[in-house]
Amino acid sequence: MSSPKVTDVVVTPVAVMDPPLLNASGVHQPYQLRAVIELHTDAGITGLGEAYGDDPTLANLRAAAPFLLGLDVFDLNALTRRVEGALVDGIRTEGLTELIGVSSREKSVAQTVAAFEVACYDAQGKATGLRVCDLLGGAVREAVPYSAYLFYRWAAHPEGAVPTGYPVDDWGGALEPGGIVAQARRMVAAYGFRSLKLKGGVFPPEAEAEAIAALREAFPDHPLRLDPNANWSVATAVRVAPRLEGLLEYLEDPTPGNPGMAQVARATSLPLATNMSVTSFAEIPEAAALGSVSVVLSDHHYWGGLRASQRLAGICETFGWGMSMHSNTHLGISLAAMTHLAAATPSLGYACDTHSPWQREDVVQPGALVWSQGSLAVPAAPGLGVELDRGALARLHRQYLDCGVRRRDDHAAMLLADPSWTRQAPRF
Amino acid sequence: MSSPKVTDVVVTPVAVMDPPLLNASGVHQPYQLRAVIELHTDAGITGLGEAYGDDPTLANLRAAAPFLLGLDVFDLNALTRRVEGALVDGIRTEGLTELIGVSSREKSVAQTVAAFEVACYDAQGKATGLRVCDLLGGAVREAVPYSAYLFYRWAAHPEGAVPTGYPVDDWGGALEPGGIVAQARRMVAAYGFRSLKLKGGVFPPEAEAEAIAALREAFPDHPLRLDPNANWSVATAVRVAPRLEGLLEYLEDPTPGNPGMAQVARATSLPLATNMSVTSFAEIPEAAALGSVSVVLSDHHYWGGLRASQRLAGICETFGWGMSMHSNTHLGISLAAMTHLAAATPSLGYACDTHSPWQREDVVQPGALVWSQGSLAVPAAPGLGVELDRGALARLHRQYLDCGVRRRDDHAAMLLADPSWTRQAPRF
Ligand SMILES: [Mg+2]
Ligand SMILES: [Mg+2]
Repeated sequence: MSSPKVTDVVVTPVAVMDPPLLNASGVHQPYQLRAVIELHTDAGITGLGEAYGDDPTLANLRAAAPFLLGLDVFDLNALTRRVEGALVDGIRTEGLTELIGVSSREKSVAQTVAAFEVACYDAQGKATGLRVCDLLGGAVREAVPYSAYLFYRWAAHPEGAVPTGYPVDDWGGALEPGGIVAQARRMVAAYGFRSLKLKGGVFPPEAEAEAIAALREAFPDHPLRLDPNANWSVATAVRVAPRLEGLLEYLEDPTPGNPGMAQVARATSLPLATNMSVTSFAEIPEAAALGSVSVVLSDHHYWGGLRASQRLAGICETFGWGMSMHSNTHLGISLAAMTHLAAATPSLGYACDTHSPWQREDVVQPGALVWSQGSLAVPAAPGLGVELDRGALARLHRQYLDCGVRRRDDHAAMLLADPSWTRQAPRF
Repeated sequence: MSSPKVTDVVVTPVAVMDPPLLNASGVHQPYQLRAVIELHTDAGITGLGEAYGDDPTLANLRAAAPFLLGLDVFDLNALTRRVEGALVDGIRTEGLTELIGVSSREKSVAQTVAAFEVACYDAQGKATGLRVCDLLGGAVREAVPYSAYLFYRWAAHPEGAVPTGYPVDDWGGALEPGGIVAQARRMVAAYGFRSLKLKGGVFPPEAEAEAIAALREAFPDHPLRLDPNANWSVATAVRVAPRLEGLLEYLEDPTPGNPGMAQVARATSLPLATNMSVTSFAEIPEAAALGSVSVVLSDHHYWGGLRASQRLAGICETFGWGMSMHSNTHLGISLAAMTHLAAATPSLGYACDTHSPWQREDVVQPGALVWSQGSLAVPAAPGLGVELDRGALARLHRQYLDCGVRRRDDHAAMLLADPSWTRQAPRF
């Protein structure tokens, strides 16, 4: 085998319809943006990657792209160096949503590397005939468990937020415990999920605790999680967390920052999980020193890729932290990458989060990612094991061009429905 | 490419002549033991590995060997599981020399995995045409700097310690500063090393500090290191370390254990390095909490292999620790593995230690490992890039059978010369 070298980099932004899911920042916009990355090589092989599709992310991806020409797809250290070199001036750091921690130069580099690294791994796999999980050390599980990601939501986006003809999905609204339980029943019936995660930080904590209690009653044996996205003050979290003991497998980001998380940790026996106070390697020493977290949610998109996520797994193992996986809205390329990573990472023991059930559109050909009993089988074909659906890609790129959304802003989306909405964190 | 599966495992112990190098435990025996590992596969490819060759290590390697049949050489997670399964009963933990920290079940598993993991990587490289450094993320340096490993030593082993005809090397004795400087001059002239490391813990610290001062005078621009192998009490180290400030790039293991190292660290501006108080992932949280070390010496032989060493590198980067590389007496297979690892690990920024200049015998064919300006060029051929010299292997295995040494015991070797020698640590 001669090692494939990059000959062309194609970055295609797409928009996919998204339902009005509520969270601490506001509400999901009618369209979520993603970027599809194609690394063409001199071996006739194309590696696929996927990233956020907001303007700052696209600017970084496009700034880095010319520097990747000639890159050996196995030389991941060179990928990092080239991206760092490309982004040394004019890096865009404002891309990340506030729901996954603070922005930084380091994190923007990590995100850009991650997007291309996944495509390099896909190309490596296609060149060697190996699956990405094999290139990451081998699958320790051939089926990767995911969690049901439950959201408070409206039945439809507010009037004026969507173009004429925007199709309403058939999930209906869910604004109290009964609606959440009904949503969970449908999702469990359709996918077989075991762990159930409620996105919180929307209503007062007592109301969300009631929803958790209702889920426990309806699903006596399903592990439960609540994620208020740091929308509780320390005092609120210290008051509410003990009420959730015995109900949750973990409480995710009750409050912002490691010092606050550490105060909450001392007040409850619940394991605290995070994808907000530990979102980069730079934040780990503080978490280790303070004992602020018990579970870290990995996400290859912002930790710097699959290798970096395995590095994080090593740190979690070393410090006795559990490991789970964070999800933003994503498509099939990322879902495949997440599945390969989880398959090849022994310590990634919690069911991974995914927004998949909420997505009605994708850029990959159907059939490669098959749900069974709440898990995805690791795709069998070399590389990521998914292929682009070029028709869908063209259509979703057209949708990107037409929809006018250029960055994620759940706050602005909420203002359309509630002009009195304020940016306040923590809200409770 | 179809992934090679292991069809046969051959473990061959060898003995190589070793000069009477002095250290905190005593003196090197006339023979050092190594094990050469051959993983034969159904692809007609053989992967090479190298481990300690003492009885406990051989017992673990041989216990694990039958469990490796059928192993996919890319499935490193399965390798770990199989070794853990094989060693669940009857593991031998007493193999490690006291110079690289305490023994443990975890470390014995790590050593056994490491030996086979290197062979798996060699086979992966031969199967794909890639070098091991390419499989580890790509070479960030094509020449890996090593340090000159200086030892107090005798001209010859004591009478009665060696068989008739055992050839004395031509380095002569070195028991005071002048001898160390002469040794350094010869080694620098022959190899071009920049960093100079003195193995200490042999004479009172003031005498070793004088040797360091003499090296500084003879080599004004060469980074210097001193490694007393934890043979100083905390009080001694606190007294002596400040005298070495400005002279050393780091002081290695002045005193045993992380609590003691932390006391010394607070008493000096010298960076403290270790391959004794941090020798496994289990020891890292304590070191992080206490601030006991600034530099960790990796060693794939006991950290669990090349992947585990890169995991350690990630931890070092995360906690702001420098990274160097430890050496025990080793042959060309391990030297190649060390070189590939260092080439592919950006944060491994210090020149690596190696005992190579002291070895007169090897199991690999000459020519693949070429010294230039104190560095080794990364071998160019696929895999590790070294090939077995079957004649040499047979001869050194014969030497193993004949020499009667079955485990490392520098203390016993010293007793032959000095019957009053006592096991005392720290000695100063
Ligand atoms: Mg979260
Ligand atoms: Mg040492």
